[in-house]
Amino acid sequence: MQNTPYYQQAFVDYLNKFVQVKEPKSLYSPINYILQLGGKRLRPVLTLMTAEIFNCPYENALNAALSVEVFHNFSLVHDDIMDDAPLRRGQETVHEKWDVNTGILSGDAMLIMAYQLFENYDSDTFQALAKLFSKTALQVCEGQQYDVDFETRDDVSVPEYLKMIEYKTAVLVGAAMEMGAIVAQASEADKHNMYQFGKNLGIAFQLQDDYLDAFGNPETFGKQVGGDIIENKKTYLYLKALEFSNDDDKQQLLHLYSLQPADQTNKIETIKEIFDTSGASLATKQIIEEYTNKAFQILEKLEISDEKKSLLKAFGQQLMNRNN
Amino acid sequence: MQNTPYYQQAFVDYLNKFVQVKEPKSLYSPINYILQLGGKRLRPVLTLMTAEIFNCPYENALNAALSVEVFHNFSLVHDDIMDDAPLRRGQETVHEKWDVNTGILSGDAMLIMAYQLFENYDSDTFQALAKLFSKTALQVCEGQQYDVDFETRDDVSVPEYLKMIEYKTAVLVGAAMEMGAIVAQASEADKHNMYQFGKNLGIAFQLQDDYLDAFGNPETFGKQVGGDIIENKKTYLYLKALEFSNDDDKQQLLHLYSLQPADQTNKIETIKEIFDTSGASLATKQIIEEYTNKAFQILEKLEISDEKKSLLKAFGQQLMNRNN
Repeated sequence: MQNTPYYQQAFVDYLNKFVQVKEPKSLYSPINYILQLGGKRLRPVLTLMTAEIFNCPYENALNAALSVEVFHNFSLVHDDIMDDAPLRRGQETVHEKWDVNTGILSGDAMLIMAYQLFENYDSDTFQALAKLFSKTALQVCEGQQYDVDFETRDDVSVPEYLKMIEYKTAVLVGAAMEMGAIVAQASEADKHNMYQFGKNLGIAFQLQDDYLDAFGNPETFGKQVGGDIIENKKTYLYLKALEFSNDDDKQQLLHLYSLQPADQTNKIETIKEIFDTSGASLATKQIIEEYTNKAFQILEKLEISDEKKSLLKAFGQQLMNRNN
Repeated sequence: MQNTPYYQQAFVDYLNKFVQVKEPKSLYSPINYILQLGGKRLRPVLTLMTAEIFNCPYENALNAALSVEVFHNFSLVHDDIMDDAPLRRGQETVHEKWDVNTGILSGDAMLIMAYQLFENYDSDTFQALAKLFSKTALQVCEGQQYDVDFETRDDVSVPEYLKMIEYKTAVLVGAAMEMGAIVAQASEADKHNMYQFGKNLGIAFQLQDDYLDAFGNPETFGKQVGGDIIENKKTYLYLKALEFSNDDDKQQLLHLYSLQPADQTNKIETIKEIFDTSGASLATKQIIEEYTNKAFQILEKLEISDEKKSLLKAFGQQLMNRNN
């Protein structure tokens, strides 16, 4: 087992070899561009790490890891079109730098390329990886669709919201880890538990992202603090605040979430206050803790050494103690 | 072996069972809509027919056939967005009936569902089908990209055009047939030859589509005659007319292809005349004949009975003698 920066470097080296100039350039240049925009490479690192936990050299898992990263970037390219987002990691999005049609077609090609990366494995491993991948990829699409649907609905429930972030974000973290276990030919129970560990950690991670979006330190958070409030996003904080608030606060919250003021400062401050006084902030911190602990409990079931469990737990804690 | 209408009906029955109401409806309703818009179901019928040619009951090939049809419809949904097309088979396109974001996301889901349909096969067949599918799907994307690129280029060559239609249209016909052969566990040589038969027939079919677009009978062609000319599409007819024309006709052709007149009647008539007088019409008929004969020659190599060869040839001739 190596540390995170080691796997990150090994992965990026492999990615850079994968990224070649192919014809037609108008299709492949945008793909190379988005793949090389950077990022923490969290998902592929988890695939490599999981393979080594089950005593398989990480090199054998590089194609599965790359598949996960190519798929993740496919979803970013198409989501950025749908959200009309100008920037991704501080750089122009693909549809901004080129155009919408290029974004659609290059994204499609990436989804296919993600499957092709499994071709390097024997047919049983191939089928196991592709099956998990398809199930996960379809859930990611469903999660994105729920997210779009929620924008125009005013009766979104907390369970619906949790299902949305599970599908849109968390299942891919679970799948990234299970793929490492599949390549390493781990037992059925271990594969299942790695998936559940990753998925629950992924839910905790996304809920923390929601929390930090409102209450993070502007100097370290990386994104604009209050971004979700500006976009009237129905996050866990918002749904819980609606549930817990008295009638006056509830009406004010609903009213503020119907506005798009030129200066958002007051709106953000008022809403954050309601999040705090209603108990929504506390409830969010509690549910993050719950999902994190659930992940750590699943860890105990794995048929691996205590040392490896500690390493995975440390990785999880590091992830949950981030400020960005 | 059965006739084409028999396989069409069997396929549509299977498709109708596949099409179910799933959640989120906003993702799956557009998928059901496009899959049930109709069409000749040419590609899936070829998959079923090929399986039976190699003594495998067509029922075993239904999932592969459905995968081909789901992929084909995925490409229609995304292409219609890129072409800003309002109608498909005389009905509203998905992005018109819903919106562009729905078209993107439902298309993505269809591409994934196409892979999932292979999960019903054993792992070796699964891998063989998915490998062929990925290679083909990526070529279809590349073909679409070349088609987009050609719109703004004035130096498109005949070999480039032929490669574009091969990728955009013909390889999927070849793959549809090879998939039937894969499911039937045909020999390597037979799989290869079925692919080549389908691909060459596919090229002939697309070139004939170009020809009929200009010279078809308006009463039976189905689409608007002259549609390619109206859109200034650089078809085989156009490229050959440029090659064969004297300087005056060449300048006139280039000039007319830079215009978008309100009334297209004169433009269409003048260009059709240049197609005829330059010899481009004849050259197009000849190359259609060439690719059709190439397909029929490949047929001879197949390790199947003469009776089956005759059936495939009759199918090819029927396809090439169509008026729509």
